[in-house]
Amino acid sequence: MYHHVKKLMYTVNIGEPDPRFGRMLLEQFGGANGELAAAMQYSIQGFNCEDAPRKDLLMDIGTEELSHLEVVGALIRMHLKPMKNEREAAEADPLVAIAGGGGVALFDSMGNAWTADYLKVTGDLAVDLRSNIAAEARAKIVYERLIAFTEDQGSKEALQFLMTREITHMRAFTAALESMEKAPFSIGIIEPTPVLVDQFFNASTGESQYGETDFSGPWNQGNGLTAVQSEIKGGQGLDVTPYTPKPGSQKPVPADSTPVGQYTGPVGKKQAALHERAKIEAEKNATVEV
Amino acid sequence: MYHHVKKLMYTVNIGEPDPRFGRMLLEQFGGANGELAAAMQYSIQGFNCEDAPRKDLLMDIGTEELSHLEVVGALIRMHLKPMKNEREAAEADPLVAIAGGGGVALFDSMGNAWTADYLKVTGDLAVDLRSNIAAEARAKIVYERLIAFTEDQGSKEALQFLMTREITHMRAFTAALESMEKAPFSIGIIEPTPVLVDQFFNASTGESQYGETDFSGPWNQGNGLTAVQSEIKGGQGLDVTPYTPKPGSQKPVPADSTPVGQYTGPVGKKQAALHERAKIEAEKNATVEV
Amino acid sequence: MYHHVKKLMYTVNIGEPDPRFGRMLLEQFGGANGELAAAMQYSIQGFNCEDAPRKDLLMDIGTEELSHLEVVGALIRMHLKPMKNEREAAEADPLVAIAGGGGVALFDSMGNAWTADYLKVTGDLAVDLRSNIAAEARAKIVYERLIAFTEDQGSKEALQFLMTREITHMRAFTAALESMEKAPFSIGIIEPTPVLVDQFFNASTGESQYGETDFSGPWNQGNGLTAVQSEIKGGQGLDVTPYTPKPGSQKPVPADSTPVGQYTGPVGKKQAALHERAKIEAEKNATVEV
Amino acid sequence: MYHHVKKLMYTVNIGEPDPRFGRMLLEQFGGANGELAAAMQYSIQGFNCEDAPRKDLLMDIGTEELSHLEVVGALIRMHLKPMKNEREAAEADPLVAIAGGGGVALFDSMGNAWTADYLKVTGDLAVDLRSNIAAEARAKIVYERLIAFTEDQGSKEALQFLMTREITHMRAFTAALESMEKAPFSIGIIEPTPVLVDQFFNASTGESQYGETDFSGPWNQGNGLTAVQSEIKGGQGLDVTPYTPKPGSQKPVPADSTPVGQYTGPVGKKQAALHERAKIEAEKNATVEV
Amino acid sequence: MYHHVKKLMYTVNIGEPDPRFGRMLLEQFGGANGELAAAMQYSIQGFNCEDAPRKDLLMDIGTEELSHLEVVGALIRMHLKPMKNEREAAEADPLVAIAGGGGVALFDSMGNAWTADYLKVTGDLAVDLRSNIAAEARAKIVYERLIAFTEDQGSKEALQFLMTREITHMRAFTAALESMEKAPFSIGIIEPTPVLVDQFFNASTGESQYGETDFSGPWNQGNGLTAVQSEIKGGQGLDVTPYTPKPGSQKPVPADSTPVGQYTGPVGKKQAALHERAKIEAEKNATVEV
Amino acid sequence: MYHHVKKLMYTVNIGEPDPRFGRMLLEQFGGANGELAAAMQYSIQGFNCEDAPRKDLLMDIGTEELSHLEVVGALIRMHLKPMKNEREAAEADPLVAIAGGGGVALFDSMGNAWTADYLKVTGDLAVDLRSNIAAEARAKIVYERLIAFTEDQGSKEALQFLMTREITHMRAFTAALESMEKAPFSIGIIEPTPVLVDQFFNASTGESQYGETDFSGPWNQGNGLTAVQSEIKGGQGLDVTPYTPKPGSQKPVPADSTPVGQYTGPVGKKQAALHERAKIEAEKNATVEV
Repeated sequence: MYHHVKKLMYTVNIGEPDPRFGRMLLEQFGGANGELAAAMQYSIQGFNCEDAPRKDLLMDIGTEELSHLEVVGALIRMHLKPMKNEREAAEADPLVAIAGGGGVALFDSMGNAWTADYLKVTGDLAVDLRSNIAAEARAKIVYERLIAFTEDQGSKEALQFLMTREITHMRAFTAALESMEKAPFSIGIIEPTPVLVDQFFNASTGESQYGETDFSGPWNQGNGLTAVQSEIKGGQGLDVTPYTPKPGSQKPVPADSTPVGQYTGPVGKKQAALHERAKIEAEKNATVEV
Repeated sequence: MYHHVKKLMYTVNIGEPDPRFGRMLLEQFGGANGELAAAMQYSIQGFNCEDAPRKDLLMDIGTEELSHLEVVGALIRMHLKPMKNEREAAEADPLVAIAGGGGVALFDSMGNAWTADYLKVTGDLAVDLRSNIAAEARAKIVYERLIAFTEDQGSKEALQFLMTREITHMRAFTAALESMEKAPFSIGIIEPTPVLVDQFFNASTGESQYGETDFSGPWNQGNGLTAVQSEIKGGQGLDVTPYTPKPGSQKPVPADSTPVGQYTGPVGKKQAALHERAKIEAEKNATVEV
Repeated sequence: MYHHVKKLMYTVNIGEPDPRFGRMLLEQFGGANGELAAAMQYSIQGFNCEDAPRKDLLMDIGTEELSHLEVVGALIRMHLKPMKNEREAAEADPLVAIAGGGGVALFDSMGNAWTADYLKVTGDLAVDLRSNIAAEARAKIVYERLIAFTEDQGSKEALQFLMTREITHMRAFTAALESMEKAPFSIGIIEPTPVLVDQFFNASTGESQYGETDFSGPWNQGNGLTAVQSEIKGGQGLDVTPYTPKPGSQKPVPADSTPVGQYTGPVGKKQAALHERAKIEAEKNATVEV
Repeated sequence: MYHHVKKLMYTVNIGEPDPRFGRMLLEQFGGANGELAAAMQYSIQGFNCEDAPRKDLLMDIGTEELSHLEVVGALIRMHLKPMKNEREAAEADPLVAIAGGGGVALFDSMGNAWTADYLKVTGDLAVDLRSNIAAEARAKIVYERLIAFTEDQGSKEALQFLMTREITHMRAFTAALESMEKAPFSIGIIEPTPVLVDQFFNASTGESQYGETDFSGPWNQGNGLTAVQSEIKGGQGLDVTPYTPKPGSQKPVPADSTPVGQYTGPVGKKQAALHERAKIEAEKNATVEV
Repeated sequence: MYHHVKKLMYTVNIGEPDPRFGRMLLEQFGGANGELAAAMQYSIQGFNCEDAPRKDLLMDIGTEELSHLEVVGALIRMHLKPMKNEREAAEADPLVAIAGGGGVALFDSMGNAWTADYLKVTGDLAVDLRSNIAAEARAKIVYERLIAFTEDQGSKEALQFLMTREITHMRAFTAALESMEKAPFSIGIIEPTPVLVDQFFNASTGESQYGETDFSGPWNQGNGLTAVQSEIKGGQGLDVTPYTPKPGSQKPVPADSTPVGQYTGPVGKKQAALHERAKIEAEKNATVEV
Repeated sequence: MYHHVKKLMYTVNIGEPDPRFGRMLLEQFGGANGELAAAMQYSIQGFNCEDAPRKDLLMDIGTEELSHLEVVGALIRMHLKPMKNEREAAEADPLVAIAGGGGVALFDSMGNAWTADYLKVTGDLAVDLRSNIAAEARAKIVYERLIAFTEDQGSKEALQFLMTREITHMRAFTAALESMEKAPFSIGIIEPTPVLVDQFFNASTGESQYGETDFSGPWNQGNGLTAVQSEIKGGQGLDVTPYTPKPGSQKPVPADSTPVGQYTGPVGKKQAALHERAKIEAEKNATVEV
């Protein structure tokens, strides 16, 4: 059962309203990594959890996130205020201004309605805790970016409060996962296939125009993993040289390029005629520049 | 301006209600290729159209599709009727039964709410007509499949009526496009780049386990198009032989498989330790069967 | 600030789990008229509300709905339990069974993720209260239908509890709206245009195949409203007699049917040829039955 | 069956195109409370309605809303026109400009595709009429806000026309509901539980930092309703004083704060080590300001 | 099996980053007609295709579109770069800037998440090819519009490359469809109903305030199609003259406007009283101007 | 640049097609934790990544997931085959059967179209790696559940292959994160607020009807975290005893329950009258049972 006390968890005060910053803040109200997403992800995991101590944890943090939703909502409302009657402010987010009268609503900064598709709830506690650790990391980085885009001291402090709490939660979820003492990389109960599980497939190879190349590192060797190479490791994909925008560089089609299979069905007469016409037009237009 | 006359465009009568078939029919009410999608696609193209004769065409067909929406709605309602109070019928589509009281609503057969994401409206008339030709072809095939899944004569006849109209519309849109007398493959006003436009990139090669192979045909040669081959045309991608489910077939990793770049940063001590532990567990489990 | 107490607002107990009913119940967990929708609609209206007494009302009911979400979640979990390991139960809702491990999640009975598109939040208090009155009426009827589809006494009683609360809330919202003492039909501050506001447009006319006809009633006369008739009131739309599925009844096209405008552009030669071919095929197929 | 006459229901004329206002207007074309939403909500309720007189009402208004869709579409197109070829105008709504060629489409002012999730269709006539009354109130307030954000006289007049019609419809739906002569707060057929239905739960209490407090009013007493208080009515939730952004105010953790249950499982050694490290870092950083 | 080579198919270079143009370009990354939509539509059709030669075609082009996704992604990233730390740039697309750190993501230019609702996959090859022809036409026109909105030469050239490829694909899909040698307008296997299939319903008639009128053309006569007229062809819909914004022009309601059916149920006393009050208010306000 | 080789990464063979299991498998094709989601999440993170070695990692795994999409697609197609022409099979997923002709498409097991809302892409590498670790854990558990719901050996082996790869990827992403050698819980660059970051808020307290209670554990004490208690820790929320479904147990409203604020505005006369009527009806109905 929930109870609401009217006192906000954090006392929000801002200087000058900044409607465009208010719009940015909506990311943390109705956005993919925002407070409602956190509240719902943890609370619903909590509803389903049959491990009473960690259910308590999930409900503790899930409930705190609802309080954060209220805090960030209060902050946003202060910034959105000019949208109620200033045309220029309203242009920053017409959905908020026209349909919502300048108040907060469950949209992100680009007006997308909040959706439960943002949530990660599997009903496997150890998996859900990993999803929560990642979710807190994402929320932290989003708050950090918001702090970087405002000069308003009151806003910065409120965001610092909310950002700090994400780290607290990340630590708590990590501690809860550690306390389950599962073997590393042990998810669920079915064991992965030996040998196969140690093979890292090197599916991206070659060197890009920007100097990016193929690397080995601890993620594909030396941690029990070994890289499996492609037979095509020397390959550079399609013969793409022509498409770098340097005029006159089109390579001729290699003489031995016939595919293995040979389609021998009908060709479509109209198509052949159309091609003739297209060729004529192409020739006419061959000198046209973009 | 729209006017509604109460007479349905087609007099619907069915035999026995078949709620599971009713659910299937929702594809053509609130589904991606259904009557509302058609009505909206053509009508909104029509609202935007500045070519008065073809605007008339778009409005004619857009309006007819609204009448079809009503007809298919009447047909569906007859089939859904048992959902109002029979538990088993309600199980076929609980959203319709519980939230909608057994009536039609703008959902498809899997309960997805209709969305304007289904529509293709570019504001370029010749392009829009192509989208419409394709849309009518899709609607036709969907009606055909519905006809194949019912034995009810009244339903079959109603669907035959609706299906026939799609062909009429397909012919009309094709005639309208032809009457614009645009050069073939001429879209908009910027010409494609010569030579490049004639090259077909052979980006999928090799032979599959199921005998599929690389083909040439009129779509990549002989219509002004020539195939450009990949340097990796002999390649078979990753050395995947091991992963066919035949025990004992794992190939050794080739000796020369080191990638070009060598990452020389830190490795993460914890990770190395975890690996040790993982290796021990893997050995323990090496005999475990799924 | 929110606080959660572990005691459920209502003690849920069921007899035999019924997974297919559990799926139906999801309507009230993650569905369009369900408890999260209610909780969010009222709470977010509350966050925005500057009328302190009615803000208190919105927060009271918004918070209670969160407690209902928890109660209905507990009820659903009991019914979904067999989805964890029984294949037939899992078929009733694979998304819940496979992705969610048989727990509750923010989906409706057809697996649609909850979306804030369900909410109605305008920031105008008198308008929002009207939306809430309607929302409570919808939630009531949905609970009623759920009650009708189960024989489980514990489920029926839990639903009766939740259903009853919707009526309480409907009364409270109505009382709050009445206490604002706004003139009837006075929304916002701009007055509607006199005379025009009293005209009811009779945009649907005629008589259907099922005996439906054009009516007058207190909604288009006698409450200050007068009906405006269409000039086409005698019309029956397109001459549709042929499309009732009675063979041989196609009416000839009227002789005077030429439209006003006459398109005189090109016709498309290919199209004419195609028609010839289509006509031949049509004749060949004229005897084909569906 | 529907028929379209080319004459618009209202003759739209504007002065200078205002693309940013055009974008705002999309709320009433493809937005949640816009004309398509109204047209579809009433028409589909009408398709399902078995009360012939009120079905006529639903079809009348549903059809009129389609005509409004056309009118508001014409208005928007005039304002969007510069998006076709002016870069700055195109920036106001790139989806309209780039994908749609500057025409109208079924998006709202933030580019969200129209979705049937906006609709409220329950199949219970008395409930649906309440949803419609609320929908008309919302549409009215949105038009009012649009009027307030433009200086263009032609636009203002067109919007005034459309806004006026919403009030007409609101009156008609109210008259239709009243004429059903249902007992007040009587929804469906199952009675709510006596006594419980009269209890208003006071789930939000205390006093906020902004002076908001707990209220009684006609919505929780005096209309047959009595308030039920929480045992925690004196509570202020979490001891949040520290989090107001005043330095040095952190309260010590109360000595008696141990929870009831004591988790006695493993703690996770890595976690303990990590904490040590985190503590050291935190000390290092304790003087860092945001 | 897929393989990635690090070399981009096209070497992208731009001059000055233009974040607002970068946002526009997202249309072709995560938008409805963009490269992911193309890649997925063709590849998934390919997965399902049982015609090996044309399956090869679908996989060739589907794979090339993945390479285009990478190219357009590289182009966009260059333009979005300033969003990482410049507030004004970030305002152009806060979702990209705040949630995505200024990188590309699967959103369109208005921040809509990419959805498979954009795809057209029916499993009927001849139908799918038509959908693909239309899809390529749409992609072409979108690239053309993007080219028109930038002055950056490197961007223009990259877009010209991508645009050109769409025409190549359109030709290939057309050739493949032609090579199937299906009769024109022959979709699936069920024949349309003779005679009915030749009737074009003239469902939109009359003349608009802007001079638009009813047309005949090759799409409704002369290609085997004949127009079927509405009985209401002389009608102009509702008697709408009053609603052109010229004061004083309201026509009186015609004397013979009574509908056929006469509702004789209760009227609702409260409603009558409310009307009285409304009438008084309306009179008071009759002189109010918008 | 991408290249496709026709050989599947894993040779799929099944026994008897099982369309209902095929529908379940769609979770891993077009579902929230499925192969397209994995492919897109990693590839798009890779497009954005400026750390060349780990970009290589992201592209390697992102590309492998595309190959998995193809494998799981092949598996599903074999199971869906009967949907093409068997009515009962088609009922298992009408969207696949009717709209898709029995082929795979980008829907999950409940027909939801794949959406980029499933993806977690922040552009901060260390955060993205955490999201990927969690994503692999989720994918693993979903494959495990699918294995448990089939008896078909070929399907089990294919799923075992795919499941194993998720663990490989989880190890690789973990190794990559570890190799970045970031301080624990260090996300981004702004430090959290000292002291506050160590406080765990105990926002869920009390004891439930099912014996759940308040716990301490390593997540709220002993890892540098200390629990902050609520002043309301003894509270049990609303006085809910009456709502357990035991007749006659309604508690009287406490005498001292008057809220602090007293609303003194108008009450709404109609409302008072309605209440009188409601009270009479409630008395009449007091004996009605559900």
